[in-house]
Amino acid sequence: MKKIRAAIVGYGNIGKFVLDALETAPDFEVAGIVRRSISNVPAELSGYNVVTNINQLEDVNVAILCTPTREVEKYATEYLAKGINTVDSFDIHTGIAELRRNLNTVAQANGTVAIISAGWDPGSDSVVRTLLQAAAPKGLTYTNFGPGMSMGHTVCVKSKDGVKNALSMTIPLGTGIHRRMVYVELEDGYTLEQVTKAVKEDPYFANDETHVMQVESVDEVKDMGHGVNMVRKGVSGKTQNQRFEFNMSINNPALTAQMLVSVARASMMQKPGAYTMIEIPVIDLLPGDREELISHLV
Amino acid sequence: MKKIRAAIVGYGNIGKFVLDALETAPDFEVAGIVRRSISNVPAELSGYNVVTNINQLEDVNVAILCTPTREVEKYATEYLAKGINTVDSFDIHTGIAELRRNLNTVAQANGTVAIISAGWDPGSDSVVRTLLQAAAPKGLTYTNFGPGMSMGHTVCVKSKDGVKNALSMTIPLGTGIHRRMVYVELEDGYTLEQVTKAVKEDPYFANDETHVMQVESVDEVKDMGHGVNMVRKGVSGKTQNQRFEFNMSINNPALTAQMLVSVARASMMQKPGAYTMIEIPVIDLLPGDREELISHLV
Repeated sequence: MKKIRAAIVGYGNIGKFVLDALETAPDFEVAGIVRRSISNVPAELSGYNVVTNINQLEDVNVAILCTPTREVEKYATEYLAKGINTVDSFDIHTGIAELRRNLNTVAQANGTVAIISAGWDPGSDSVVRTLLQAAAPKGLTYTNFGPGMSMGHTVCVKSKDGVKNALSMTIPLGTGIHRRMVYVELEDGYTLEQVTKAVKEDPYFANDETHVMQVESVDEVKDMGHGVNMVRKGVSGKTQNQRFEFNMSINNPALTAQMLVSVARASMMQKPGAYTMIEIPVIDLLPGDREELISHLV
Repeated sequence: MKKIRAAIVGYGNIGKFVLDALETAPDFEVAGIVRRSISNVPAELSGYNVVTNINQLEDVNVAILCTPTREVEKYATEYLAKGINTVDSFDIHTGIAELRRNLNTVAQANGTVAIISAGWDPGSDSVVRTLLQAAAPKGLTYTNFGPGMSMGHTVCVKSKDGVKNALSMTIPLGTGIHRRMVYVELEDGYTLEQVTKAVKEDPYFANDETHVMQVESVDEVKDMGHGVNMVRKGVSGKTQNQRFEFNMSINNPALTAQMLVSVARASMMQKPGAYTMIEIPVIDLLPGDREELISHLV
């Protein structure tokens, strides 16, 4: 069987875990890693082709974008036009529909496939949310996150004057309400009161219960674990009180990376265009004989 | 918008709840109900066309099969050949792959669509199982059922000599192991010991911890609630101990019926052929504008 040749674009936190997932997948081959610079190549990449431009890699079927979210559209547009499928974990919820429209045009014009916003939320959680809506069309779904590090909130705190390093933890309080626990290392000459005020006034935090605490070392309190508790209570037909719950306790970048590799596989089976995960049959995420998968999983 | 015209085939426990789900769906119209006999039409069907043959109904887009599982293939084959899509909740796990193959041939030859085994297990649970396998490819998934009535086991007990009426409850003990709690009304002249022996020797029960109890009235102890607790612990890439859990507490026929109506909708969007739920994008289960659904659910 011919293996799918994947390029990893960006080798930060997610990129490292994507390499793990590709190395353990039976149907993938690493075409190479695209980085801004090829100096300081880490030891684990010594057996791989590390380049600064995807053109330097051969026969890439799919590019797994592990870049910052705001750079996804630029890279995807470029690669899709080159005949390479792309997958990403674009996570700005309000921008997903537009990204899909834009990439859909490029992908259809070039006979390629983009699967966007494919991590765990957006991503696998979106599939569960959609399924639960179909199971009980009337009702409320609450997605509760954490405890875990919020990337977006952490970046926001780091941007404040006087903050040397920061960690913003998301704590679930139920019904989609979250507490923000913020841990900061301060620059000399700044007080916790100043930083706390700046953080609490930011729109990212203004609507949530927020506590800011000073620590000696952010690194000492940081872990990559995360969680989800999704709850739906609703009505199937005319029958009330149908209850559903989905829980995860996971390593955040490892799950994101695994979902990216699963959708990279699925990208090989779709018609040209751009898709979110709810538009892809879940069986396409898995390797192996389809009839056997159906026998085991249905 | 033109509504989807659905026929309900069989008006037992599931059929009644399918009518509920069709009446509350914004995009469906009840074409009619097909029954073995049109005597004793229940009051709630007075506004509907009740017939003994689907040919007596006009413009049926999809037939929702609420017949016993063993009659699904016969009806589906007949209707698919007539140009009518079919959906069913065929639940003999070992027969699913074959049913799909057989109906696929008929459906493709006639430009129609069958979605099979679409209840909650097989059905919505299958979608979650497949998704979790993609999220953590190595590991174990346990699906724990109950507490709730097992239709198959109940029918088995009812077939034993001396049993007037019966209820077999499935009790989850974890890791996919289940206890069977069996409640029987006895015919005169039979002892509980005789019936207990016959039940415990049946292959349906032989491998499970089984308790048989005599009750005055099975009807008094029966309810239609059911539950699922699905657990997966596995590896994403090379990262161990990724944990996932899916729970439901539901009215059994109401959820089965709602899933049947959701896949009836999805059947209108697939290419000719036969599908299980894991082969259908979850977005196709929902009514409404796709871009809006993506904005809300992804």
